[in-house]
Amino acid sequence: MEPHSNDVNHNDEENDVENLGESDGREEEKWSTLSERNMSMRMPLLRKRTNTTSQIAVIGANACPIESLDYEMIENELFKQDWRGRKKVQIFQYVFLKWGLALLIGLTTGLIGFFNNIAVENISGFKLLLTNKLMLQGSYFKAFLAFAGLNITFAAAAGSLCAFLAPAAAGSGIPEVKAYLNGVDAPSILAPSTLFVKIFGSVLGVSAGFVVGKEGPMVHTGACIANLLGQGGSRKYGLTWNWLRYFKNDRDRRDLITCGAAAGVAAAFRAPVGGVLFALEEAASWWRSALLWRTFFTTAVVAIVLRSLIQYCWNGKCGLFGQGGLIMYDVSKEVSSYGSYDILAVIVLGLIGGVLGSFYNYLVDKVLRTYSVINEKGPSFRVLLVIIISVLTTCCAFGLPWLVSCTPCPTDTTHECPTIGEIGHYKSFQCPPGSYNDLASLFLTTSDDAIRNLFSNTIIREFQMSSLYIFFVTIYFLGIITYGIAVPAGLFIPVILAGSVYGRIVGRVFHSVSVLDTGLFSLLGAASFLGGTMRMTVSLCVILLELTNNLLLLPLVMIVLLISKSVADCFNRGVYDQIVKLKGLPYLEAHAEPYMKHLVACDAVSGPLVTFSGLEKVETIVHALQSTGHNGFPVIGEPPFSESPELCGLVLRSHLLVLLKAKYFSKERRLSGRDILNKFSPSDFAKPGTGKGLKLEDISLTEEEMDMYIDLHPITNASPYTVLETMSLAKAMILFRQLGLRHMCVVPKSQGRPPIVGILTRHDFMSEHILGLYPHMRQHK
Amino acid sequence: MEPHSNDVNHNDEENDVENLGESDGREEEKWSTLSERNMSMRMPLLRKRTNTTSQIAVIGANACPIESLDYEMIENELFKQDWRGRKKVQIFQYVFLKWGLALLIGLTTGLIGFFNNIAVENISGFKLLLTNKLMLQGSYFKAFLAFAGLNITFAAAAGSLCAFLAPAAAGSGIPEVKAYLNGVDAPSILAPSTLFVKIFGSVLGVSAGFVVGKEGPMVHTGACIANLLGQGGSRKYGLTWNWLRYFKNDRDRRDLITCGAAAGVAAAFRAPVGGVLFALEEAASWWRSALLWRTFFTTAVVAIVLRSLIQYCWNGKCGLFGQGGLIMYDVSKEVSSYGSYDILAVIVLGLIGGVLGSFYNYLVDKVLRTYSVINEKGPSFRVLLVIIISVLTTCCAFGLPWLVSCTPCPTDTTHECPTIGEIGHYKSFQCPPGSYNDLASLFLTTSDDAIRNLFSNTIIREFQMSSLYIFFVTIYFLGIITYGIAVPAGLFIPVILAGSVYGRIVGRVFHSVSVLDTGLFSLLGAASFLGGTMRMTVSLCVILLELTNNLLLLPLVMIVLLISKSVADCFNRGVYDQIVKLKGLPYLEAHAEPYMKHLVACDAVSGPLVTFSGLEKVETIVHALQSTGHNGFPVIGEPPFSESPELCGLVLRSHLLVLLKAKYFSKERRLSGRDILNKFSPSDFAKPGTGKGLKLEDISLTEEEMDMYIDLHPITNASPYTVLETMSLAKAMILFRQLGLRHMCVVPKSQGRPPIVGILTRHDFMSEHILGLYPHMRQHK
Repeated sequence: MEPHSNDVNHNDEENDVENLGESDGREEEKWSTLSERNMSMRMPLLRKRTNTTSQIAVIGANACPIESLDYEMIENELFKQDWRGRKKVQIFQYVFLKWGLALLIGLTTGLIGFFNNIAVENISGFKLLLTNKLMLQGSYFKAFLAFAGLNITFAAAAGSLCAFLAPAAAGSGIPEVKAYLNGVDAPSILAPSTLFVKIFGSVLGVSAGFVVGKEGPMVHTGACIANLLGQGGSRKYGLTWNWLRYFKNDRDRRDLITCGAAAGVAAAFRAPVGGVLFALEEAASWWRSALLWRTFFTTAVVAIVLRSLIQYCWNGKCGLFGQGGLIMYDVSKEVSSYGSYDILAVIVLGLIGGVLGSFYNYLVDKVLRTYSVINEKGPSFRVLLVIIISVLTTCCAFGLPWLVSCTPCPTDTTHECPTIGEIGHYKSFQCPPGSYNDLASLFLTTSDDAIRNLFSNTIIREFQMSSLYIFFVTIYFLGIITYGIAVPAGLFIPVILAGSVYGRIVGRVFHSVSVLDTGLFSLLGAASFLGGTMRMTVSLCVILLELTNNLLLLPLVMIVLLISKSVADCFNRGVYDQIVKLKGLPYLEAHAEPYMKHLVACDAVSGPLVTFSGLEKVETIVHALQSTGHNGFPVIGEPPFSESPELCGLVLRSHLLVLLKAKYFSKERRLSGRDILNKFSPSDFAKPGTGKGLKLEDISLTEEEMDMYIDLHPITNASPYTVLETMSLAKAMILFRQLGLRHMCVVPKSQGRPPIVGILTRHDFMSEHILGLYPHMRQHK
Repeated sequence: MEPHSNDVNHNDEENDVENLGESDGREEEKWSTLSERNMSMRMPLLRKRTNTTSQIAVIGANACPIESLDYEMIENELFKQDWRGRKKVQIFQYVFLKWGLALLIGLTTGLIGFFNNIAVENISGFKLLLTNKLMLQGSYFKAFLAFAGLNITFAAAAGSLCAFLAPAAAGSGIPEVKAYLNGVDAPSILAPSTLFVKIFGSVLGVSAGFVVGKEGPMVHTGACIANLLGQGGSRKYGLTWNWLRYFKNDRDRRDLITCGAAAGVAAAFRAPVGGVLFALEEAASWWRSALLWRTFFTTAVVAIVLRSLIQYCWNGKCGLFGQGGLIMYDVSKEVSSYGSYDILAVIVLGLIGGVLGSFYNYLVDKVLRTYSVINEKGPSFRVLLVIIISVLTTCCAFGLPWLVSCTPCPTDTTHECPTIGEIGHYKSFQCPPGSYNDLASLFLTTSDDAIRNLFSNTIIREFQMSSLYIFFVTIYFLGIITYGIAVPAGLFIPVILAGSVYGRIVGRVFHSVSVLDTGLFSLLGAASFLGGTMRMTVSLCVILLELTNNLLLLPLVMIVLLISKSVADCFNRGVYDQIVKLKGLPYLEAHAEPYMKHLVACDAVSGPLVTFSGLEKVETIVHALQSTGHNGFPVIGEPPFSESPELCGLVLRSHLLVLLKAKYFSKERRLSGRDILNKFSPSDFAKPGTGKGLKLEDISLTEEEMDMYIDLHPITNASPYTVLETMSLAKAMILFRQLGLRHMCVVPKSQGRPPIVGILTRHDFMSEHILGLYPHMRQHK
């Protein structure tokens, strides 16, 4: 879409896909020509490891380019002059706005999180109450029709929104946010339309009874809100605020989006500390102490907003939203002393969680690859897939409870049995009065309530073992086949549900020797399965503690998480990492691959280098911008303006376009930097929102103008990061990632050569590129 | 002490101190000569900002050099060959050991933390019981003698240990650990003797009734344990373990010490998640996701060890250690709903905490500067100071309770009144039966119990307002004058004590309008004062939540911390940052100073550069090592071995010394690299513990040998980090800190010049150095 964003480009033409991976020699040749290298950076997914010829397409990605983000602090003369002249009041403005935006992000995310909950509780509640009423009247078929009809309607609505309006809103969104914070801007991932669909699609999807959570989408929603607020309204509607110019760069935007992601988790789980830790452990690739402080502030605001709203809604003022909303499974009253048998049980749980979790990831990967074929066929096919899955889910939920026998109501419970309202432990379903259907209590309720029922410590034998087995298998596989359809879908809830069921099963097995409550086993099961799929540790631990409000469980939750993560790590990667890879986002890992230690920086540099002179002809610049997709060009100072050729720095495509647009040229080849400094202000070079940048096609130049010169010095970043050509590629990659760069200059180690050897960009560090250039390195992999 | 460690050197000769800061011109001249620059890097404290002539010495630092640490991954041919040949089993060994060490650190720290508590509870308990008994018998003077005698004996013992055996063990230790993780190795800060004194000195100091905590020392203890375990025993006693060779570098050691610091907090507060966050927020300057995971594992082990031991001791098996030990102020039963008045009260608390906290820091700074004069006079003076403070503390604790009137025992309490045992709310002191002395209940008890009394929600009017005022003023100022004496002294407990008292006072003021309990106000007061002095946020919040076991307080604690930190930040810096600066440790801040944006990298480079040729004469090397204090030397490849002069990389002093010691020379000037690769293994170049390295004086060379050549290529780090000479100094500094470097090469931007311009080290980024070179930059400060 944008010509200046092709350094990591995405091209999924069919023939390209077909050609890939078949001949490394051919590929190497292809890479070596510069324009092709830039025009057809392939997605990792497109590289086929196996020899199957089935075409695998990229999920949810269009032909739009994936843009790299530049977290480097650009220091050119123009910006430096601005810093020097920056007044105290401007610095105050900046700090004030920074915190103000954090406050706004917290407020908005908190409100939306609450709205989500109210909407889901009311819509689902209405659906369930209606079904329940019809069941009690004995009209089983009518009940099924109402249940299925509403489910499929909601599902179709959510699917259509997602498929037609914002395909990027499908799925959890956490992988995309993670990739963004790593420096990869996938197309329209943080756009307003995505935000809209994410919010309403998520409400409809959860209400449709899908085995999906609203927690992952909340994280994405938080990030979208942060992005939108940071952009300061819409230029289209004239709603821009000049103060926000400070935030028009990737660096400040990243900070805001980190806060947004944290706020999302905080809003989803009412876990402010967990939110901060989630942003730190899972979402962000880059962190600093100051950000901790700001993220914490944002999540604190979310916590306060949620608390106030819940207090407001306490007495039924918000419809069916009462105790049910905003998951909070209070287990603080339960016993928390434990013996050696309990530890053994916990270890068993951890092991099972690890194995089940990695198998889950494996299956999710397979299903996503299959779905991508269907999804690529068009929006209608996507909606169709959504409806099929909805029908399947509905049939399971309504059909399976018929398989189990009714359980007589317990006599020693304080809960009403069978349940009359929409929340409760004992759904009567088809059972006669005085008994309940335990499987219906799990299936025909919201996920939050099902989890609350599983965590409850009221009665040990509340659920029959057979019901638990049926529920576990159903939820495990429904969760897998539901993720990937065109509906905003979080993974937390399906995983917690499945985990807490097998936790309860294990608890029953260990019942005779363990002093722990079965409800606690459910919690530990959920922890182990979360650890096995998501591979987070501290953040999951804190989120679970904040959910359950019992700190004394900490050691047990820690052991479970450590074991399940360690076991699962032996088999495959975390589910989010897997999805990032599958989506073909060029994510930079925290660790370099072993073979990178055997290569040096200049080995990865490919294609002829395009450089500009400090005083460059307009024609040369326009030609370079047209013929390459590069985003940054080294500027070389040449005699007579310097004694010998010297590296002045790096000039960005977007900055060049601003100069070209303003037609600030001079007829002679002379230094006109001072005038440029006076004529332009840094805000002229501010980065606009995605897809709104200047394009080369917008600029028309006469032949006379093409013959003139531009003085590039004032807009050249004189502080580019450099590495020696002999720097090992592994070290260069870590540096690149740690600093969040888009370009890294490779400089020669000896004299008598041009002052720059080449430029490394994100795609040069991708395994696909390097192993394409050096196929023999595969053995070191 | 070590010749190869002078790049950040410390020289506190008197004349040097006197000369400083008087004439910037003279100073600039002095800096410009290389040898002086290296031999007399001054400490920040020594630079006098004002014109007072009083000599300020560095606290706790001897004439030993402060060594910079090198967190860079050294990549030379020798190491690369080792990686290539590294077998699967060795990689497994490394991973296994990494986790094994984390386990060991957790175990040991947990055990020591528990031992500390048992010892303190028993010693203090004995003392308090004895005093109580004598008081009940009416022998007030005898009681005072016993109380004072024991206090002063313990104090003198702690002071002597600290002053004579390990001066580095004085104080909290957190600033030193923080500096270490920033890359500054202060002399013997992690030595075994320091560990020994830290443990026993802390027990004695706390038992002596000083207003000090054992929490800060626990962090230091954890770090020392980690360092000791990482070094793999003592070479002196032949107790080395070859497997640990992988950890003989600064990088792996830093990771271990980060785990150790986290384990320390976890052991001190029984707060495993808080420990991880503390290490992340306050201690570490550098973090990565993998470390989060390992730190979490370590603190989980600590939590489990503590839990098991406490369960073991539950029934009085550990003497007086019962409920009292290991602070855990359970407030989970208290009400947690609150209204707008409560929020107002909380805001007031935050404001007070911010002001009191910054004033506390200001006074601590002043007191430390005064004490340093006394401490410099010798160990005996240090012990004397300890005894004086002990006498003062004893008089306050025993004398002040006489000032208040007795309170009649409440009738509606479940606690016995007056208290018989050593723990309890109602100390009788001089009061007749049926009444108690509320001030004695605070003074004549352990700090942990005093805090528990203040946090308790039993009776609102348990303490008279006058008692609270007296206690607050006494503790506030005793805390200030106690920190800085030669005793291991944590700041957490004094701050929590003072904070919870004024929290209770504010609670009483708001009593009529607030629904919050007075005990909760105490907790919030403690939070606000902690925020005001230490300026941590997330970690303090989590530590407090783990201490009090009530997650529903989270929003309130968050607000209090945010306000108190923000307010206090307007006045001065956090207490630990202040102490780091005061100790003269060359700490690199996370942010560059504004004036650094106006300078470029080569502006900060000073002195002629000493480089070696790829094949260098032994004599040249020996001379360079003798005449400079540099730790790293650039290696330049020259014709005929390369086409033109080229930068091969950087060679370290310690590596050169190994080659010199082995006398691996060749008569002719030829490449003998391959042989070196065969003869040496990477473990020959492993970094030994502090002060154990090879010294130039250990090596004797004949004249013939001096005429021979060394091939430096195999031991040259071919991947040094470089910056262009035109890189802004601010960016260079951030890069330097972010990568944890010791040397950074500055390369020229143009051709026809030597391939390296200079080297930047830690001291080149210190304000003192830069402002010495460019005094006019002061205006930009």
